[in-house]
Amino acid sequence: MTKPRSAFKRAAHARHLLESEIDAWVASASASGDAHLIPLSFLWDGASMVLSTPVRSRTARDLLRAGRGRAALPNTRDVVILDGPIERIDPDVEATVIQAFADRHQWDPRLESTEYVFIRLIPASIQAWSVDSELATRVVMSDGEWADRTMGEPGLE
Amino acid sequence: MTKPRSAFKRAAHARHLLESEIDAWVASASASGDAHLIPLSFLWDGASMVLSTPVRSRTARDLLRAGRGRAALPNTRDVVILDGPIERIDPDVEATVIQAFADRHQWDPRLESTEYVFIRLIPASIQAWSVDSELATRVVMSDGEWADRTMGEPGLE
Repeated sequence: MTKPRSAFKRAAHARHLLESEIDAWVASASASGDAHLIPLSFLWDGASMVLSTPVRSRTARDLLRAGRGRAALPNTRDVVILDGPIERIDPDVEATVIQAFADRHQWDPRLESTEYVFIRLIPASIQAWSVDSELATRVVMSDGEWADRTMGEPGLE
Repeated sequence: MTKPRSAFKRAAHARHLLESEIDAWVASASASGDAHLIPLSFLWDGASMVLSTPVRSRTARDLLRAGRGRAALPNTRDVVILDGPIERIDPDVEATVIQAFADRHQWDPRLESTEYVFIRLIPASIQAWSVDSELATRVVMSDGEWADRTMGEPGLE
């Protein structure tokens, strides 16, 4: 069995991935209980995942309806899963974060001929693991609080 | 813009990944429209994805209720997405495929103290792409038929 990393180390690793990765798997569900899953570009703004997708898409419609979302990155052997509320972003009010999104992806959804919506997934919980021995302590954020910022100093891990 | 690979090449690549990868992202949805997403070990039996998860898990319950599933692998920059019906496998009737699953993963869910269920996702459609220029032709399986096995010889691509 591979030696598990501490929850502190995995919290830091999850933040690193959120800052360095450019897209994530985003799950959504219809009101009648059909699941959907697509990869979407995102920007981590330090506290939430900013996404953009056509306003008429199944994903946009269902995320906004459900008011909660679940996303995962980067792969099944280095897992980070986010769960939390979904909010629609007004790009006029939050022009700075939308411009940061456009700069990061060299793609500005505001310039598309199709209407795009900006959506924020605010993680309330985050799980991070890569080996089975880490599953028992896979929760690295709970109630919006990072494990390593609420559980004391790393020296205590 | 990166030159797109042909749908033929991507169909072959998707089959290669289904044969070589060991786990996939599996999306499910509750009857009331809440999405879920977890990585699960799978075995590709040549025509379907064989999965196993605790029978009381949210994923098992919701996949079996919905009767359809969606799974993706291996990552957001090399995308294969499967959609199709879900069937419950009777491990006594299909002992060979279940043993193949156990051998592949060096893990036999039948021996777990928790009750596991075996589930089959039979893809009716598969999408495969890695760059935007491939999006227009991302469907490599439709109505259960691989594009490269129904559209004529690769020489005609």
